[in-house]
Amino acid sequence: MEQAGVDAVVASTPVNVTYVSDFWSVSHWTRRSAQAFAIAGRSSTRAIGLVVPLGNADLVPADGHRAPDFVESYDRFVFTPPREPQANLEPEAAQLLSIVAGHPDAERGPIDALAEAIRRVGGNTAHIAIEYDGLLHGDNVRLHSLLPDIRFTDGLPLLRAARSIKTAEEIRRLRRAAGISADAFQAAVADSHPGDTELDVQRRFHAALAMQDGTPFLTSITSGPRTALPNGQAGGRQLQEEDGIRFDGGCRYLHYVSDIARIAAFEAYPSTHRAYYRAVVNGLEAAVDVARAGARAADVFAAAVDAVRRSGIPHYERSHCGHGIGIENYDAPRITPASTDVLEVGMVICLETPYYEIGLGGVQAEDTFLVTEDGLEPFSTTPPEPIPAGTG
Amino acid sequence: MEQAGVDAVVASTPVNVTYVSDFWSVSHWTRRSAQAFAIAGRSSTRAIGLVVPLGNADLVPADGHRAPDFVESYDRFVFTPPREPQANLEPEAAQLLSIVAGHPDAERGPIDALAEAIRRVGGNTAHIAIEYDGLLHGDNVRLHSLLPDIRFTDGLPLLRAARSIKTAEEIRRLRRAAGISADAFQAAVADSHPGDTELDVQRRFHAALAMQDGTPFLTSITSGPRTALPNGQAGGRQLQEEDGIRFDGGCRYLHYVSDIARIAAFEAYPSTHRAYYRAVVNGLEAAVDVARAGARAADVFAAAVDAVRRSGIPHYERSHCGHGIGIENYDAPRITPASTDVLEVGMVICLETPYYEIGLGGVQAEDTFLVTEDGLEPFSTTPPEPIPAGTG
Repeated sequence: MEQAGVDAVVASTPVNVTYVSDFWSVSHWTRRSAQAFAIAGRSSTRAIGLVVPLGNADLVPADGHRAPDFVESYDRFVFTPPREPQANLEPEAAQLLSIVAGHPDAERGPIDALAEAIRRVGGNTAHIAIEYDGLLHGDNVRLHSLLPDIRFTDGLPLLRAARSIKTAEEIRRLRRAAGISADAFQAAVADSHPGDTELDVQRRFHAALAMQDGTPFLTSITSGPRTALPNGQAGGRQLQEEDGIRFDGGCRYLHYVSDIARIAAFEAYPSTHRAYYRAVVNGLEAAVDVARAGARAADVFAAAVDAVRRSGIPHYERSHCGHGIGIENYDAPRITPASTDVLEVGMVICLETPYYEIGLGGVQAEDTFLVTEDGLEPFSTTPPEPIPAGTG
Repeated sequence: MEQAGVDAVVASTPVNVTYVSDFWSVSHWTRRSAQAFAIAGRSSTRAIGLVVPLGNADLVPADGHRAPDFVESYDRFVFTPPREPQANLEPEAAQLLSIVAGHPDAERGPIDALAEAIRRVGGNTAHIAIEYDGLLHGDNVRLHSLLPDIRFTDGLPLLRAARSIKTAEEIRRLRRAAGISADAFQAAVADSHPGDTELDVQRRFHAALAMQDGTPFLTSITSGPRTALPNGQAGGRQLQEEDGIRFDGGCRYLHYVSDIARIAAFEAYPSTHRAYYRAVVNGLEAAVDVARAGARAADVFAAAVDAVRRSGIPHYERSHCGHGIGIENYDAPRITPASTDVLEVGMVICLETPYYEIGLGGVQAEDTFLVTEDGLEPFSTTPPEPIPAGTG
């Protein structure tokens, strides 16, 4: 931000508000019409100001590490203050009472509250980088008219750049999200047998996520020829003895997501499919071998595709072989042939080599890694052969 | 739409694209930077055109009822066509192949593809109602420059109005979503005992949702004084003998959501809290008594609040006592004191009378109903006393 010469960055989309502040506004995350903003000051990405609908004020982080310096609330919501004197309010209740006490008497909307928050951070003449994509139609014009002497520029590039390097707490959550997903799929397929439906597998997978505090994210579970559908949704198809079962996706854990892929199979899975599987696993391993801090993303891509081609799928093509991951599943960097990204210490990336042959099926290997000076530290590890299904 | 004099409506946010087409683009639903559009023609809200990232083409509905008239795809994605001749491709695979075959050779972005789709529906001079809030920063200007003779107006009011009246299939999904949530919470608290944590209850609730094909949506599970936090998230607090357990939220089932609330309690739950609970249940029942097609939303609100005040919470205040529900949890109508909405046959609404007293706790009753000529048909029913916990 100091390089960009801005005084503050305003995050406006759910992902970036939560990134900046760890504040998860349930209204903002579930309704396009709801709004919340987080303002990060010049010297760090820690939130210094939050704009919140009063009805979500109970979700503002109350602990010292993430507590904002100030909150501007908007809209109406009825909280009844204690009817009897309370000796010991919990910190979250005390903070909620203080936000309610500071709520303005006059009704106002989110853009009025945001304008006030920007004034508190930068006065009337600051240079503010703002993420425009969370604003509603017309709000941009209104914000500029309320703050005619503020210089606004696009804040999204700054936020994307900051998000690409993870903090220790982000790394902890991402490691756990990947581990939960890998464990849950392993458990789900161990209990699955020919005659079960894809939905049976998905039910077991989602239930196993739940018991480890993960919520479903991006789940694609398919079987047989349907494994060629990259995002195929589990349905009533019954598993056959010769099937592979393809899983791609993961879970959300404390706002952060996982994205891994696995192939499970019964004993009669054909040798052609097993050969394809080994080819894509070789591709993933080749990518891992060259990836480390300082490596070019385009070189990682080339290593992956070349290895798959040499290992049994000579016609293999891909548009990307991986991506960063965080609160969103496509953080920087992008592992593409034309990417100019360079891997850096603290990035968390997914590497993947999926192959989708319509009518026949798909195979895929995808894992999540922390980038270090010496190479990659895996959060999950694809097995060299498909996971045996129905062993539980 | 005919009243509004427009030739077509373009949906741009995930909720409205899925509403119009039943197309669920996983990229669009999980990343603000991804885009998809659905164009509904003049005489119905059925999708006649879809704009999709090629990588999500496998999710375009393939059956006759919802299949779009045409698809414009954009971006790159590698699908390998069948390497051997295929006698019997499944319909979803055949449709995917046909979308891939129609994909333009020249690379283009979502707004180019949308402009082409609008031309196919309305020529170069149509009147198009467009939902602006799904567009990214700058796309509005770009779309107007690509289609200088198209007259654009705001499509959001049309989409909101259409969404308020549900089809038979939407009603089926909403009924099931509410039923899954009510059953899952009942099962979760039956198995919960003093000493368990809030997270234990939530794990059981989410696992029970999973086994009925629901995914978590809006879950708030709290205990003791934390029940005063409207959106409080389950944590490590251990359940006490005198606790209430408050649940608000639900699940998503085939894109449609539920939003209900329940209070569970152990035997030692204090009589003050039980009295509060009866007051809010009385309020909900009073609202149900006056709600039917033709009733004013403001009268339903007044009936609810008056009954709670007369039943034991004389200081009761609320900003709303309910809302429509669909793919989003706040469809029209709004049950507020100033609402001009009138209930109509086919609306599906949530009615609720929550009470949040900071430091003491919260009680809530919320259920989901179909509006009919004669009154309301319940999808879920709040019990007259708190659900006994720990009986399982």
